[in-house]
Amino acid sequence: MTYCVGMKIDRGLVFMSDTRTNAGVDNISTFRKMRIWEQPGERVVVLMSAGNLATTQAVVSLLDERTKAAAERAPTLLEAPSMFQIARIVGDTVKEVISQSAPAGQTADAAFNASFILGGQVKGSEPRLFMIYPEGNFVECSDDTPFFQIGETKYGKPIIVRAYDPKMSFAETVKLLMVSFDSTLKSNLSVGLPLDLAFYEKDSLKIGLKRRIGADDPYYRSVSEGWSDALKAAFQSLPDFVE
Amino acid sequence: MTYCVGMKIDRGLVFMSDTRTNAGVDNISTFRKMRIWEQPGERVVVLMSAGNLATTQAVVSLLDERTKAAAERAPTLLEAPSMFQIARIVGDTVKEVISQSAPAGQTADAAFNASFILGGQVKGSEPRLFMIYPEGNFVECSDDTPFFQIGETKYGKPIIVRAYDPKMSFAETVKLLMVSFDSTLKSNLSVGLPLDLAFYEKDSLKIGLKRRIGADDPYYRSVSEGWSDALKAAFQSLPDFVE
Repeated sequence: MTYCVGMKIDRGLVFMSDTRTNAGVDNISTFRKMRIWEQPGERVVVLMSAGNLATTQAVVSLLDERTKAAAERAPTLLEAPSMFQIARIVGDTVKEVISQSAPAGQTADAAFNASFILGGQVKGSEPRLFMIYPEGNFVECSDDTPFFQIGETKYGKPIIVRAYDPKMSFAETVKLLMVSFDSTLKSNLSVGLPLDLAFYEKDSLKIGLKRRIGADDPYYRSVSEGWSDALKAAFQSLPDFVE
Repeated sequence: MTYCVGMKIDRGLVFMSDTRTNAGVDNISTFRKMRIWEQPGERVVVLMSAGNLATTQAVVSLLDERTKAAAERAPTLLEAPSMFQIARIVGDTVKEVISQSAPAGQTADAAFNASFILGGQVKGSEPRLFMIYPEGNFVECSDDTPFFQIGETKYGKPIIVRAYDPKMSFAETVKLLMVSFDSTLKSNLSVGLPLDLAFYEKDSLKIGLKRRIGADDPYYRSVSEGWSDALKAAFQSLPDFVE
């Protein structure tokens, strides 16, 4: 599996993804699941993927090739006039890749499935965040649900549901995602370090920070250890059950 | 879905289950998923179930009938010489019920599946806790993994993994389960109030407490509200990310 979260806050967008892929617990690898396309001053596009690795790599490679050989096939991610159009391009590419794999395979279509979180901003419009399904259609986040998760989403959801606040700073948002990822990492072998982190400040039209976070990252370690203690202290602070 | 947890602590066993069953989000009902058989001074057997409701009800009814008409078919839950033998009886009954349903159905076998948590004590041996699979086989908890979850297990696992301590009192254990259930309830519609709670004190050979906890239960409310605040405070106490 995988765990990726894209989150919209008042100040912009924050993205975090793990890097573990597996075909069974005895066959794990590390692959980057976050891809960033950037034209400083004009647009920033971030794409994170979960699901079949062959499918997600093919989708990213196709999108990437088209940005490089623009004459060959238009519009590309770097030319589409809006994030909505970019989401359509990604959705169409997903559908195309899955439909090419599916009939030839021996197993169910499900095995080729992939989901994506797409976020970014094109000059002249607001930052937007989408979730793209294997069928190629997509939904956009709203004030009611200002984040998307893909992959192994359940372990890390309770803390996001409770602690999310649109007024958070980037530093606080990274902390929230780090706690959510740490809860998932501690419970599920199919999600693994290192993590990829990126944040995008609204209207900056360039990526604000892009970092890989490994097991030896001092901030990750302070959150991971601190959260265990903080959680135990929080738990102790609640009243015990009285018969 | 469902959420049930059985937990072994030094002082005994604690069980908690939700009561929501659903066939789609537009068809939900309330059913008890915890069944207790008790012969005070001799044995206590607690069984919790997740999965297909027709299967789990048939299993419980068969087990129950056999305890009442012991002459008809032996050994019953109330006569088996050990918890291990009781687990075998439950496992055989599960296998029997599923194998009767499966060939006649139009859908995959999976739809008739059910899992169980079985715990209790028979006079003369230790309290034991088992997880029983749809195939009828089962595993017993150990010091390394002193709890079992069935159903919608992921949301509520991180807090158990972190806060479990075998030296906990019953009151603290109920608090831990309540937090785990509350995290699940807040994230997943298929798990719902009221909850059933039971605890069994080692060597007492009678059920210690059996209670149904509804939305208006003051302790549940204090945990649910308190946990939100405590979690936010714990989160605030961690250091913010520094670039």
